[in-house]
Amino acid sequence: MAEKNDYEDRLGRLRQALDSGAMNAVQRSLHALSPAEIGRLLESLPPSPREVLWGVIDPEDRGEVLLHLGDEVREGLMRTMDVGQIVAAAEDLDIDDLADFVEDLPETVTQQILQSMDARDRARLEQIMGYEPDTAGGLMNTDTVTVRPDVSLDVVVRYLHLRGELPDSTDCLYVVDRYGHYLGALSLDRILTLDAGRQVRDVMERERDPLTVDMSDREVAKHFENLDLVSAPVVGDKGMLVGRITIDDVVDVIRDEAEQRMMRMAGLDEEEDIYAPVRGAARRRALWLGINLATAFMASWVVGLFEATISQAVALAVLMPIVASMGGIGGSQTLTLMVRGLALGQISGGSAKALLRKELSVAAINGLLWALVVAAITLFWFGNPLLSLVIALAMLFNQLCAALAGVTIPLLLKKLSIDPALAGSVILTTITDVVGFFVFLGLGALILL
Amino acid sequence: MAEKNDYEDRLGRLRQALDSGAMNAVQRSLHALSPAEIGRLLESLPPSPREVLWGVIDPEDRGEVLLHLGDEVREGLMRTMDVGQIVAAAEDLDIDDLADFVEDLPETVTQQILQSMDARDRARLEQIMGYEPDTAGGLMNTDTVTVRPDVSLDVVVRYLHLRGELPDSTDCLYVVDRYGHYLGALSLDRILTLDAGRQVRDVMERERDPLTVDMSDREVAKHFENLDLVSAPVVGDKGMLVGRITIDDVVDVIRDEAEQRMMRMAGLDEEEDIYAPVRGAARRRALWLGINLATAFMASWVVGLFEATISQAVALAVLMPIVASMGGIGGSQTLTLMVRGLALGQISGGSAKALLRKELSVAAINGLLWALVVAAITLFWFGNPLLSLVIALAMLFNQLCAALAGVTIPLLLKKLSIDPALAGSVILTTITDVVGFFVFLGLGALILL
Repeated sequence: MAEKNDYEDRLGRLRQALDSGAMNAVQRSLHALSPAEIGRLLESLPPSPREVLWGVIDPEDRGEVLLHLGDEVREGLMRTMDVGQIVAAAEDLDIDDLADFVEDLPETVTQQILQSMDARDRARLEQIMGYEPDTAGGLMNTDTVTVRPDVSLDVVVRYLHLRGELPDSTDCLYVVDRYGHYLGALSLDRILTLDAGRQVRDVMERERDPLTVDMSDREVAKHFENLDLVSAPVVGDKGMLVGRITIDDVVDVIRDEAEQRMMRMAGLDEEEDIYAPVRGAARRRALWLGINLATAFMASWVVGLFEATISQAVALAVLMPIVASMGGIGGSQTLTLMVRGLALGQISGGSAKALLRKELSVAAINGLLWALVVAAITLFWFGNPLLSLVIALAMLFNQLCAALAGVTIPLLLKKLSIDPALAGSVILTTITDVVGFFVFLGLGALILL
Repeated sequence: MAEKNDYEDRLGRLRQALDSGAMNAVQRSLHALSPAEIGRLLESLPPSPREVLWGVIDPEDRGEVLLHLGDEVREGLMRTMDVGQIVAAAEDLDIDDLADFVEDLPETVTQQILQSMDARDRARLEQIMGYEPDTAGGLMNTDTVTVRPDVSLDVVVRYLHLRGELPDSTDCLYVVDRYGHYLGALSLDRILTLDAGRQVRDVMERERDPLTVDMSDREVAKHFENLDLVSAPVVGDKGMLVGRITIDDVVDVIRDEAEQRMMRMAGLDEEEDIYAPVRGAARRRALWLGINLATAFMASWVVGLFEATISQAVALAVLMPIVASMGGIGGSQTLTLMVRGLALGQISGGSAKALLRKELSVAAINGLLWALVVAAITLFWFGNPLLSLVIALAMLFNQLCAALAGVTIPLLLKKLSIDPALAGSVILTTITDVVGFFVFLGLGALILL
């Protein structure tokens, strides 16, 4: 009962045991965890306890655990293993998992793993390794169970009894002709509930269209979500059945996709290890800071154009961060909505105009509202109605600019095949800073001096 | 074949047909789409074509389609339906889906839907409606297929033949005693591959622990991901089997969770309709802008403290946005990593210190690097080595502050049971702005004047 509610407890106990060096207790606790849980635990540990824990994991479980780690954590741990250990870890993996696993290995280690396999598995692995990892081909497993269309259901049942245990997440068998072309799916449900004398041909589902090997993993995920699938067949050239994809692999794609967007909007790598070595983390983030510095200097340069104005009216310098900051906030709300909408396929060419009109209207309402508030506070603070006018006009104008930029930047980036999540926010804040400063200080120079 | 690759094509044709008013063509295209696809299509349309399309969807399909819409879009469309239409739409839904559906309906409509149901379904629906929607109880369906432990597998097979078609995503039957207590799971796989004479008791899986009705939906999602499940039993008081959760509902939880985090970091509602009516969208976003305005004024107030300094050294006003902006960028990288880490359970109390040390080190390296770059550019621009010194020191200090804030704010918010994704970025940028301006202008006053 209540098994999951004490997941945190078990984790806590394991951490305590790790801290106190009670390695027997650690090993006992590990037996109660799934590979995914052990993976999450490893990711949540700083480098040195992480390596200690890694040391006590059963060598034959290590392959499964490695699969559940982010790239960076996995690479770190694999650097501590010798070739023999890596080959041993690879031994018990499914073919599709093995393909992910060997992808990042040095060529020599991959060769040793291939040599340790029997000829049939080797051929299957080489086949999967031929597909890009982010396609249906890279995601699929080859563990399909197939039947012929011209047999009756009781023959199928006898075959299954002879065959024994089915692969995980098998909700249906696939029907193929004698050349291996995919014909349809036969769910276990139907085998169990329909009359045993009926022919496979007559009861199989033909309407379930197969996926093709070159379909992207995101399309595969959409397909599963649209049709609430547990597994789907994958076909290659001329409709030959080559494998199947199961929902557990699709769940990973779905989780990664949404996470990637959030991490990219902050200029981070989605595989980033939270306890990454300092040097690597600093190097990766330096680029993003550098790009932002360049844009910040652009904004500064605009301010510099108005040095004379500022020295005559210092209040402008005091208030200018407000105009820029409000523009940035408003624009990034629009941008986030657009980035998500593009990723979910909610935005088409035809709808851009309607979206722009809506976002500009929202910006006009909120721009006006907050411009009035800012004008009132400014009047109270500096007692200068002209200064209030300047900041109100600048704010309103910058909010409209922010909405325009928030809608158009992601659309433009998408057209240029650049991920809007990655580059959008830098470009947006550059625009809202530059426009905000320029309009505010420019109006200040015109109206106040 | 290649069915999904022309999903975009079909959508394009449907949009064209909508635009040209060829409603027969629209209706034909709709038949090729699943409810989830129609839902996505509706979400991608501006309000007026959206209502046109809604009008041509088969009344009996409408319930399924409504389930696949975000709250805001759903409510908008339901306002166009009368009570009879709503009751008709509800008719063909599964009990768990129906529970989600009636949740937002007015009491009178709910009563009419309840009256249109038979007594058994009504009792089931009322049971599910008693649970919070974001718990296992709210997520589950009551369509379990149960067997007794003391029968043989061939009895089970005969029962299934009599019973006919199984509910969607049924990968196993549940074994209960005569009082309804959950005992274990019997996978279809085992029924089909094991010897027909064996007793259910001997072949059922006992190790599969059931979920409890009060478990949160996020815990449920973790459980499914950890164990690669297709379905899981749910038990209530004293281990009574009350329902089951299937992977398709869990996939929705997983997608929503990651999306929610991204939307919240921008101060948006995750259910927000991208084509929401302007007034509602403006009202919801106004709050966020207002909070940010308050914090922007705080930063302005700090700048105001140094009016005298700025009027003597205007270059300070020119450069001050750089210090604040770089602090904000660096801090939000740390913050994003923390928000994700907390959500994925990667961060425990014991690891906070290690994380802080790492993030401070990263900030020190990047702070130093970019401080030197900024100092060099400043020297070249203004020819004042003291000014270069001031901005370099301020930048380094602000990067360290940003890292400190990025690590501690989410931990504090979590302790206060506030979602770090929601409030984190406002607090962070307030700190990096205030500290950045104060240190930069303060050092300027000390060193330059």
